[in-house]
Parts: sequence; C-alpha cells; structure tokens
Amino acid sequence: MLSNQLQNGMETANLLWSRIPNSEDGELDGGTLLSTSDGGNVESLDYEVIENYEYREEQAQRGKLYVGFIVVVKWFFALLIGIGTGLAAVFINISVENFAGWKFSLTFAIIQKSYFAGFVLYVLINLALVFSSVYIITHFAPAAAGSGIPEIKGYLNGVDIHGILLFRTLIGKIFGSIGSVGGGLALGKEGPLVHTGACIASLFGQGGTTKYHVSSRWLQFFQSDRDRRDLVTCGCAAGVAAAFRAPVGGVLFALEEVTSWWRSQLMWRVFFTSAIVAVVVRTAMGWCKSGKCGHFGSGGFIIWDVSDGQEDYSFEELLPMAFIGVIGGLLGALFNQLTLYITYWRRNHLHKKGTRVKIIEACLISVITSAVSFGLPLLRKCSPCPESDTDSSIECPRPPGMYGNYVSFFCGKEKEYNDLATIFFNTQDDAIRNLFSAKTIHEFSAQSLLTFLVMFYTLAVLTFGTAVPAGQFVPGIMIGSTYGRLVGMFVVNFYKKLNIEEGTYALLGAASFLGGSMRMTVSLCVIMVEITNNLKLLPLIMLVLLISKAVGDAFNEGLYEEQARLKGIPLLESKPKYQMRTMTAKDAFGNQKVVSLPRVAKVADIVSILRSSKHNGFPVIDHKRNGETLVVGLMLRSHLLVLLQSKVDFQHSPLPFDSLSGSRPISHNFTEFVKPVSSKGISIEDIHLSSDDSEMYIDLAPFLNPSPYVVPEDMSLTKVYNLFRQLGLRHLFVAPRPSRIVGLITRKDLLIEDGEDTANVELQSTSVRLHRHDPRGPGTSVRSLDVERPLLNGLLAQDRPSN
Amino acid sequence: MLSNQLQNGMETANLLWSRIPNSEDGELDGGTLLSTSDGGNVESLDYEVIENYEYREEQAQRGKLYVGFIVVVKWFFALLIGIGTGLAAVFINISVENFAGWKFSLTFAIIQKSYFAGFVLYVLINLALVFSSVYIITHFAPAAAGSGIPEIKGYLNGVDIHGILLFRTLIGKIFGSIGSVGGGLALGKEGPLVHTGACIASLFGQGGTTKYHVSSRWLQFFQSDRDRRDLVTCGCAAGVAAAFRAPVGGVLFALEEVTSWWRSQLMWRVFFTSAIVAVVVRTAMGWCKSGKCGHFGSGGFIIWDVSDGQEDYSFEELLPMAFIGVIGGLLGALFNQLTLYITYWRRNHLHKKGTRVKIIEACLISVITSAVSFGLPLLRKCSPCPESDTDSSIECPRPPGMYGNYVSFFCGKEKEYNDLATIFFNTQDDAIRNLFSAKTIHEFSAQSLLTFLVMFYTLAVLTFGTAVPAGQFVPGIMIGSTYGRLVGMFVVNFYKKLNIEEGTYALLGAASFLGGSMRMTVSLCVIMVEITNNLKLLPLIMLVLLISKAVGDAFNEGLYEEQARLKGIPLLESKPKYQMRTMTAKDAFGNQKVVSLPRVAKVADIVSILRSSKHNGFPVIDHKRNGETLVVGLMLRSHLLVLLQSKVDFQHSPLPFDSLSGSRPISHNFTEFVKPVSSKGISIEDIHLSSDDSEMYIDLAPFLNPSPYVVPEDMSLTKVYNLFRQLGLRHLFVAPRPSRIVGLITRKDLLIEDGEDTANVELQSTSVRLHRHDPRGPGTSVRSLDVERPLLNGLLAQDRPSN
Repeated sequence: MLSNQLQNGMETANLLWSRIPNSEDGELDGGTLLSTSDGGNVESLDYEVIENYEYREEQAQRGKLYVGFIVVVKWFFALLIGIGTGLAAVFINISVENFAGWKFSLTFAIIQKSYFAGFVLYVLINLALVFSSVYIITHFAPAAAGSGIPEIKGYLNGVDIHGILLFRTLIGKIFGSIGSVGGGLALGKEGPLVHTGACIASLFGQGGTTKYHVSSRWLQFFQSDRDRRDLVTCGCAAGVAAAFRAPVGGVLFALEEVTSWWRSQLMWRVFFTSAIVAVVVRTAMGWCKSGKCGHFGSGGFIIWDVSDGQEDYSFEELLPMAFIGVIGGLLGALFNQLTLYITYWRRNHLHKKGTRVKIIEACLISVITSAVSFGLPLLRKCSPCPESDTDSSIECPRPPGMYGNYVSFFCGKEKEYNDLATIFFNTQDDAIRNLFSAKTIHEFSAQSLLTFLVMFYTLAVLTFGTAVPAGQFVPGIMIGSTYGRLVGMFVVNFYKKLNIEEGTYALLGAASFLGGSMRMTVSLCVIMVEITNNLKLLPLIMLVLLISKAVGDAFNEGLYEEQARLKGIPLLESKPKYQMRTMTAKDAFGNQKVVSLPRVAKVADIVSILRSSKHNGFPVIDHKRNGETLVVGLMLRSHLLVLLQSKVDFQHSPLPFDSLSGSRPISHNFTEFVKPVSSKGISIEDIHLSSDDSEMYIDLAPFLNPSPYVVPEDMSLTKVYNLFRQLGLRHLFVAPRPSRIVGLITRKDLLIEDGEDTANVELQSTSVRLHRHDPRGPGTSVRSLDVERPLLNGLLAQDRPSN
Repeated sequence: MLSNQLQNGMETANLLWSRIPNSEDGELDGGTLLSTSDGGNVESLDYEVIENYEYREEQAQRGKLYVGFIVVVKWFFALLIGIGTGLAAVFINISVENFAGWKFSLTFAIIQKSYFAGFVLYVLINLALVFSSVYIITHFAPAAAGSGIPEIKGYLNGVDIHGILLFRTLIGKIFGSIGSVGGGLALGKEGPLVHTGACIASLFGQGGTTKYHVSSRWLQFFQSDRDRRDLVTCGCAAGVAAAFRAPVGGVLFALEEVTSWWRSQLMWRVFFTSAIVAVVVRTAMGWCKSGKCGHFGSGGFIIWDVSDGQEDYSFEELLPMAFIGVIGGLLGALFNQLTLYITYWRRNHLHKKGTRVKIIEACLISVITSAVSFGLPLLRKCSPCPESDTDSSIECPRPPGMYGNYVSFFCGKEKEYNDLATIFFNTQDDAIRNLFSAKTIHEFSAQSLLTFLVMFYTLAVLTFGTAVPAGQFVPGIMIGSTYGRLVGMFVVNFYKKLNIEEGTYALLGAASFLGGSMRMTVSLCVIMVEITNNLKLLPLIMLVLLISKAVGDAFNEGLYEEQARLKGIPLLESKPKYQMRTMTAKDAFGNQKVVSLPRVAKVADIVSILRSSKHNGFPVIDHKRNGETLVVGLMLRSHLLVLLQSKVDFQHSPLPFDSLSGSRPISHNFTEFVKPVSSKGISIEDIHLSSDDSEMYIDLAPFLNPSPYVVPEDMSLTKVYNLFRQLGLRHLFVAPRPSRIVGLITRKDLLIEDGEDTANVELQSTSVRLHRHDPRGPGTSVRSLDVERPLLNGLLAQDRPSN
C-alpha cells in the first residue's frame, strides 16, 4: 500500500483531489446536481470515502493541508473570474460605445447635408452590425442566442443544456452582443454579460477548452458538479457586477435569481468576485478617462447618476407612485405573455425553416428598428429650447458630437430641439440618462413619450427571441422610464410643487417595469440604487417593486421562468406544488418499475438493461448468505457506460471480487468518470462489445454510491420534494417502512466540537464501527461491514500504470 | 361527519388553520424547529395531514381560499411588524436624543460657571439613567440584557431560550436601551432594536401576551414553528431597517446573519416589512422636522452622510486601506476574545452573586465612563481653530447648544476647540459624524485619536456583558473610525494629495472593525453604504471587509457565534465539521439506546419511560399479525405530556382504537399541542396520575408524526448532517439498510404541472394508494394502510364540546 503510494505519487494526489474538492464544506458528496440535455439525468461522480485505516491515518496528516490548498485555489479562481469577466465587460462596452458613437457622429455629420443619405447610411451601418451578430450566432454559436439567463438558471437548478458553457458560446456571446447592441436593436448587453461571466467561470473551472487546445490538466481541480456550480454562480454575479457596475447587486442577483442552492460560505466568495470586478472595471474606466478608448470614457462608475434629483417626497406623491407600480405590473406581465407567444411561434414555425430565415428575420427587424428610430423623429415638430438657466449646466441644443439632452434633429431654427429624437435617435444609455435627468421639466411632450412607449414596446417584443444575444434589462428600463416620466409630467402639472422631478418618476417607472417583468425584488432594488446612485429613493423603489411584482404575479410567472419553461428546462421550484399535499412518495413514481442490478452483474445483462431502460440510476442489490437481499447502493448509467467502454474491470467469475483475491488495481483515473461540462457524454450506442466480453462480469461495488438518500414509500410528497429540492438530489430511493430503528439522531449528536483531536475521533469512530454490537440484529451490522470492505480495497489499492 | 362540521364550524376552522399555516409553501410540516431551554428538544406539532376522502373533497373546494386568506394574514402581520418596529425605533431614538441632548446642554450651561459642578451633574445624570436601565433589567426582564442577537440567532437556528420573546423582555429592552444609551455607556441601541423587532413580531404572531391580558384567540394564526420563525425573521430585518434606517441592509442582515433556513418566498415578505419600516421612520422624521420632538429631528434618513466626501481614489491608497482591513481584523478578533473572557468571568463569578452586584457593576462602569469622557478632554490642550474657509459651512467653535464639529471645552481663548472633547464629550452619533466628516483635515490630533481609541476600546470591552441592553454596532463604528481616521491622517501627510479625505478612511475603519468583529460581509457592506450614503466607496468597503473578515477568521469566530457558544446556545453551523467525513450515522448517536414505544402504550409505561429517559422523541413500533415489527412514526415527549395531562384519550383496552369502534371523537383542540413561545412547557413532574389511570392505555396513532426522515445506519455523517441541517430537523431515525427498493424518484417525477385539476389528481392519488398492489411485498403496503386509517379517523372525526 505504502509503496504503491510512493510509486504513484501523482496519481494519489489526483485521487485525493478528485475527492477533496468538496471538502471545504467537509462534505463528501451530496451535491450531485447536473444532468445531460433534455431531462436525461446523469449524476456525477459521487463517491463515499470510506477509507481503510492506513489511508485515514495518512489523510489525517495531509487532509487539512489539501483542504487549505483547495480553498486557496478556489479563491484564486474567484479572482480570475472577476478579472476575466471585468475585462470582457470592458471590451464589450468599449466596442459598443465606439461603434455606436462612430455611427451617430457619422450620421449627424451627413444629415447636415442630406437627410436621405444619412438615413441610408444609418440603416446600412445598423444592418451590417446586426448581420455580423446574427451570422456569428447562427453559424458558430447557436447556444449564444438570447440572454442566456434562463439557461444558466436551469444549469444551477440541475439541468445542463448542451452547449451553453462552451468556449464558442463565450466568443459568440461577446461578439454577438457587440453587433446586436451596437446595431441599435431594442435589446441590452446586460443579460448576455451574465452568460458571459458564467461561461468564463465554467471554462476556468474545467481548465480551458480541450477543443481549442487551451486545456491543461493542472487546472482541472473542479471536477465535482458542486464546485463547477459554485464557479458559475460566481460568474453570474461577476456578470451583473460588470454589466451594471453594481457589485452588491451582482451578489444579490446571483442569490435571488439564479441559484437554487445557496450556502453562506459561497456568499463570501461571490462577494469577493464582485469586488474584483468592481476594481477591474473602475481601473479600466480610469484608464479610459484620458481619452484612450475613443467614444468610451465619459461614464463614471455610476451609469445613470440621478443623485441631483428629488430630495424629498410628500404623501400625495405615493398615489401616483403606486399607480406606476400597477402600470409596471400590467405592462410587465403583458410583455412576458407576448414574448412567450412570439417565442413559441418562432420556435415552432419560423426557426424551423433554417438559419437563413433567422438571418433574414434579424436583418428585417434591424431595418424596421432603424427606420422607426430615424423616421419617427422626422415627423415630430421641433420645440424651442427652454429659457436658459444660468446655474443649469445643460446646454440646448446639445453641442454636436456630444452626448446629452436636447438633441437637435431636423429642426429649422437655431435654438430648437427634437424631443423624440432625444430619446429615439440616441444610444439607449443616453436615452435613459435623458429620461432620468432632473432639472429638465417639460423637456419631453406627452405625445412624444407616448409614441416612443408604443413603438419601443412593440420593437422590444418583436426583437425578443431573434437569434442574437439579447438582454431585457435596458429595454425594460427604457420602457419603464418612459411611462414613468409620463406619469411624472402629470404629477408635476397636478401638484405644482417645486421639488418634484420627472426624472424621479422615470426611475420608479423603470424599476416597476423590471419588477413586473422579471419579478425580482431585493437584487433589482439594489441594482437600481447602484446604477442611479440615489439612496434616498430606496423606500419608494421598494414599494413600487412590491406593487408591480404583486400585480404581475397575478397574471403569469417571471420572464425567466416563462422562457425556461418554453425552452423545456424543467426548473424545480423552491416550493412544492399544492397538490403534493395529498400525495405520497409512491404516487410520484407511479407505476414505473425499478430495474435493479445485482452487485456482480453480467456484461450482457447490463447492456440489455441500459438498452431497454431509459433510467439514469439503478439500485444495486446484494444477496446475503441466508438469501435475504440488501440494497448496497446506487449505480449511475454514465458510470456503467464508462466501465463498459474501458472493459478493464471485466472479470470471468460471477463472484464478488474481494472473495477472489485480496485486492485488485483500480484501472480508472477518477477523472474518466467526470462528465465534461455541456456535453452529452457517452451513449450506449457508442459501445461495442464482443460476444466474449458479454459473457464476462463486473463487480460494481467499487463504483457505486453506497448511501443514497432513502425515503419510506408512504412519506408525504411535500416532504420528499423538500428533501429532493433542498439537498439538490438527482435520485431518491423509495423503500418500504423500516421494521426497526437502531438510533435517533438529535441536535446534540451533531454538535461535535472542533477542539477534539481529529485523529482520536477517527480512531474512536473506527473502533466503534468495528466492534460495536448491535443488540438487536447483529446480522445486518456484520453484513454491512462486508459490504463496505470491497469498497475500501477497491478504491484504495491502486496500482495502475496508465494515465 | 358533515353535521359535526356544521356544529363545530368554528372549531373546524381552527383545526384547518392549525394545519394550513404551512400551506403557503404547500408543505405539511418539515419545519419542526424549536426546542425548549438549554438543549432540551421539544418538537412542535407536526402532523402529517393524511385526510380521509370527505375531508379531502371539502378541502379541494375550500383549501385554496384558506390558503389565500392565510397569505393575506401573513402580509398583514408583516405590515404590523413593520409599523410596530418602526414606531418602537422612533420612540427609542426620540427618547435617547432628548435625554442626551438635555444632559449635554445642561452640562454645557453649567460649566460656563463651574467645571466641577458640571462634572458632578454629568456623572449624576448618567448614573441615574444607567441605574434605571440596570434596575429594569435585573428586576423585571433579565432576558433583555445584552444585544439579544445571539439569542435570536439561536431561536432561528432551532434553540428556544426561555424568556427571550416575552412581552416583558420587549418592554425591558425598549426602556433599558433608552437608559443605557442615554446614560452615555460605550454601547449602542442597534442590537437591542433587532431584538425589539423580533419580540414585536413574536408577540403579534401569538396574538399578544396571555399574562398581560392582551391575548386574543383570534390572532393565533401562527401556530406552526415555521410561521413564528418567519415572523421573527421579519422582525429582525425590521429592527435593523429601523436602527440604521437601512431597509435593504435589514433584509440582508436577516438573510446573512440571523436565519438558518431561508426560503425565497420569505425574502419578499421581509423586504416588504423593511420597506414599511422605512416609510414609518421617514414619516416620523418628517413630522419631527418641525421641532415637535425636542432635540430629535436634525437627522435625515441617512444617519451619517458622507456623500460630500472623497470622489475618487488612486491605486497608492489601496495599500493603507488594506492596512486598515488588517487592523480591523486584528482589533476585531481581539475584541471578540477579550469580551469572551470577560463575559465568561462575569457569568461564573460576578453575576452569580446576585442582582445587587449587577447593579453596582453597571453603576460603577457608568461613573468610570462619565469620569473618563469628562476628565480626559480636560487634560487636553485646546487647539486654535483652522483659518475659516468661506465656502465651508462648518463653524469653529460650534455655536452653543448645537451639534457639530469643533467643540469648545475648557478652552481659554475664543477661537479654540478641544479635539478630544469633540469625539469624547459628545453623543456617539455626533462623535461618529465628526469622525466621518470631510473637509476637516487636521481637525484631530494623532495624540487625541490614540487616547480615545485606547480608552474607548477598554470601555467597550468592560461594558460588554453588563446587565443592560447593549449593541456593539455603534461602539464598533466609533473604534473603527478612530483608527481609520488615524491612518487617514498619515495618508494625507504622506501622499499630499488634495482629494484624500480623512473621513473616508474613518468610514473604511468603521467597516473594517465591524467586519473583523461580526464577520458579516454583504449585509454589513450594504448597511455601511446605506448609513453613509456613499455608493462610490462601495468597492473599497468590500475589499476592506474581505480583508478584515479573513484576518479575523484566522483567530476566532464571529462575535455572535462566540457569545452564543458561551451562552450555551448550540448553533448548528451550515457546514459539517471536518471530522464528520470519516464518521457514519451510527457513530453520531454512539451507544445511546433508543427507547421505543408500542403503538398502544400503557400509561404507566409511558410515565416510566418519560421519567427514566431524557429523550424528546420516541419511535413508535407496531407489531404486524405475523409478528414482524414496523416503525409507524415518531412521538414527541411534549405531545405525550399533553396526552397524559388531559387524560381524555385513555382507554381500557390494549387494542388499537380503530379495531374497537369505527371512529372516536378527538378530544383535543390542536392548539393544546402548541408550545407557547419562550416557555418551558409541561414537565413530567407536573403530571399526577391515579393508579387507575396508570393501568389504562393510550393509542398513539392519531398523535404521532407518521413519516419522520430516516437514514441508513452506515450513511456518511456529512450527508446526515446536511439532511438534518438543511431541512431543519429535530429528530432523525437511523435504521438498517433497506432490503429492497420499491421506486426511484427523479426530477421528472416531481415536475407536476400546475395546470392539472387538483381534484382529479387527488382522486387519482387516492385510488392509486388504495388499489395499487405492490408486486413484491403486499403485506407491508396493506399494513401501512392499516396504520394510516386510524389517523384519518382519529384526526377528523371531531366532536368535542369544550374549548
């Protein structure tokens, strides 16, 4: 044993790592979460480490060190994810701002001579950008379409959709976003950035991508699904933190919206990642301030600063604010419903006709968007500039080539501006800034705002679901702030108070629409505060969000949930369904028959079972000497397939392997059992066995999960659901009620003090396990030792040359 | 059955309510969390509702309506808690500000004539206030001492400490805080406000307090422990929201620091409560602005506004900021350690000598604090006022009777101020405002800051653990901002840049000390931002917190965890211990023997078991006709005691009750089984039985929990721990490995669509349960029906006149 370890020093380390990743939490498994595409469930490697004595002693010395090492590695990866996502966000932002800035300044330069030439140019530039985006998506990275948040949510809920975390998806997402956002479509870059962060995290986690030869075996620390999931959670938070420059909002978004299982230890690491993103983005922006980044560089860390807005509010204002909340709920729910219908129609009719249709569709929408955003302001009469205020720093009309309010567009006179162009013929960021702006009362006419609201809402609904990366945050803010400002105008006129700002209402409107559509609360609230830098409005934002979410919830589910359902991502909600109250565990699996495997199974039998059944987990049953049966564990389809493919564990005898010889070399590197992220894994069709092979046997004992969770058959289904959902299980055994109880665990039994010497406790527990006599049924307890033994030997007697 | 329901309409409704509270989540139980004092575990009522057909049909019609009603009630209570806590906070704040303001203006008036008379007056006023506080605590509400956060944390973790949520504790906390904070001790009112919020929530939840005749049976909606826990969580968030005027911080504090089990549905309600608190506090402050509240009323919603501080930071500043983080971690960990020793000593030596010693101790500390805060500034030489800046609004010295910087105290000349008095001889809020203040470079000398730091740190450590309500937030901010400002002074001198503000460093110092002592991250970060209104410093606060928490964690646990452990509150941490990796379920309960009860138990046997064993839960075993045994459920000690006390369920026959007659009236109001909050419940000593009674029997079937969670005996203890901790269990059965598996539940089995007709599903599930034949062991499944039947009959055939 010892010489083996010396010989295979590296493999031992690998073996340890493959087990230890979970050990920051002191857990051995429990987090077996991911499945392959479309509901096919494949559990990852989750061994129970039941070590023999030597190994345990060795681990007592080295374990803590390894744990420390792994913790350091995890934090280092959090750092990398933060830096990577921050840089990706900066790159996307600089690119988008430059494309858009260049587009608008060119168009403005040309319309001084000819509005028609300007229009053609504007349409063509947008078309080119959108075409590049849709081409990348359709031909290179189809999984990068849309916002990606429903898919990530599904991934963290335990459903792995093929392709969402690949390197090509990352590339497609980054460049696709630049094209679609730069091309002026009614969509945002924030959702895609969340997906980008998740991709970056996942790629770091698996040590790069094998396909593009960046992979390194040294980086493959994160082989357990839970570690990968933690990384992806960090990536999501980093994405939000980078997209909105809202680090706390990022943490809360990850917590509230995307993760399904949350551990407080993770919060700290997510927090760290977000802080790193904040520093990276801030540094990049500081560097850009000197003008090195072209059109980018005017923004600070706060995207739409409204801190110079309304200081106070009176009670009469609560009524119109509540009204904004109601509108937000209604329009948000309507948005979810319309996009649901349109996406459904697209999936089932339009997009079935191939990629060409997708490209044509996106280009068509681009042309329509360009035409509307250029054409409608042309129809609008210009307004005269307001009497210039001496302390106001806002110029009217804004100087050419600058960003700001009061855009002069198709105006006859010198001191005039076009209010529709101010919001429509502008980048979305600037339009929002203008809508949020204080000290600009009566800048917009109700007619313009209403026109814009209707047109932009329609465009946003139409654009949703095209084959480009698309976020719904910024369009949502646009829509919301438009009707918010509209309500604000009426409030200003009605109450005739000096300290009411239309911009405040625009901000509340934005919050209400996002609340009504996405149904987030705390995270959205913090994000709104972080992007607008106005803490004083916090209670108002909270109330508006509460109302809009409540109104929206009366109609349908949140945007991401609806989309996830449409995409066939079966999210397990956090609370059980109402009808589960009256069902039992038995009712859940219905009449499905369970297919069990014997401990030593014939290869031909395994193949036929795998062929005939679609199950992904099989109970393994062993026969005692007296003929009784005993459930020894859970065997996964994916692990069976690995065993069948490698063939090295085949044996001629149908007897358990430890009864033949003392120990056998384990012929597997543990990483073989790890399913790569976003792949389908091996299928039974990939395996070809000779007839000789089929006559052989495999002893499954070393490869099974020896203690899956078990529930009695008549347990209430809500209890079962909670167990399944809260522990993030993939398989749950249902057994008859037990006939006796050997012990009762209470809180006190689990309060083990840290202070106790680890080695002592372990020795003690060993001796307890070996020598305690169960007063009622010694047979079982002796037998359970028999079951354990081969595991120990099988798992630890490793002596393999390859790999 | 039907006529029974008509007769007992009210009782039926009560019965339904007693079951339905959990149904917002569709769960039946699962949240059986609370225990009585000192580790004795008593589970609450957790029935499995396995209804008979009539009941189920009726429920299918009425259930949804009831659920809706209960949801409305829950939100209404969240509203009440928000209003109540907001008003309590306003009351405490107004009182403290008025006492302190009156004290300081009186003292300042008198020291114009005689410093000695002023000193005596100052000491006496403080002494009187502190005496009132300690008298209230020692004679009226001993559970109100300290911050209360460890106790609330324990309560939400599942440990119910006697007395912490009583009405008298609430009263003691409110008036005690006013005395101790108004009396100038080195402690804050924020921690006690969290406890106050929790008390208010708990009292609302149990419909007032029986002792003071405020109770109403109509308000007793919240009988399940989980609902109470949810309310208390709302109360905690409301407390933080009110204390710091930080609604989002309150939500996150509740989430990160106090709760052990968190459900996303709860987040929204907590959020609502916080928003209500924000509105209430804001309204009260608006009302106070007109001067109706005496000395209170100068503050806005932001407590210490530093938004006019530093706009930007450079990279060189990150080093001193990291240094602040390290100091924070070290001083915070030291604070935890010192307070731990002192509290330990107090508990075991000083406070054992009775309440008189506690009173003398508090009074002594009050005199010392007064003497130090008055005397030390006297020794300090006054500094000349800085050259007056025309745009600076800060006057030097501050006008008499006002709050502000540059306090003139014992100064000879006109234009002089005493920098030590500016922080020491002031209310803590004003001192912090002065330390955070920008544009006041070189206001404080290093010598004064250092003196203050040492003295205040010592005072804070000494004061911690006295028998008064005491929070550690404000003292922590004081300590942290002092060394932060000290570091800031050196940075200003060293880098000689114009835009560095000492106040920024003071803020970071405050964050670092709190991080180093309390070890919170996200919530603390948000609270710091909300109380200072400076989002631009967010990334810096995050980094400082990360460093200080990491440094602190290297030495000891967080303040609340340490204190909880010292107080004997056994908190179950969220992650299992390292040594559990190598243990199994069997190792956890060791050699403890399980005491089982038969289904129909003799009263004398029950009494003797309850006398001889300290267990709080007993497995109930039934014998099949063929002699085999079957575990039918878990019976709780507290429920047994209720049954023994009421005696109505005693029967003469040792046969199960359903074999005697068809159905029997249930003689219990379900509320009898509900343990009142913060009480010890019934003890076996309270029960007196005649010898005739002892010869009778009880059929336990209607009262037991028919499906507690069960784990196999050789399951890894980390898995067991996760199950226990994450589902919030109190008892867990350990059984031998099952011999066969009847089914396997996967994700797909639990994806039941909402759309299906509830009644259909229920009918179907009923028929499945009744008619499905288990192919392998019909005996068990038939038997399990036998076990279920009496439950149905027993629970539902209610026909009782009393109560």
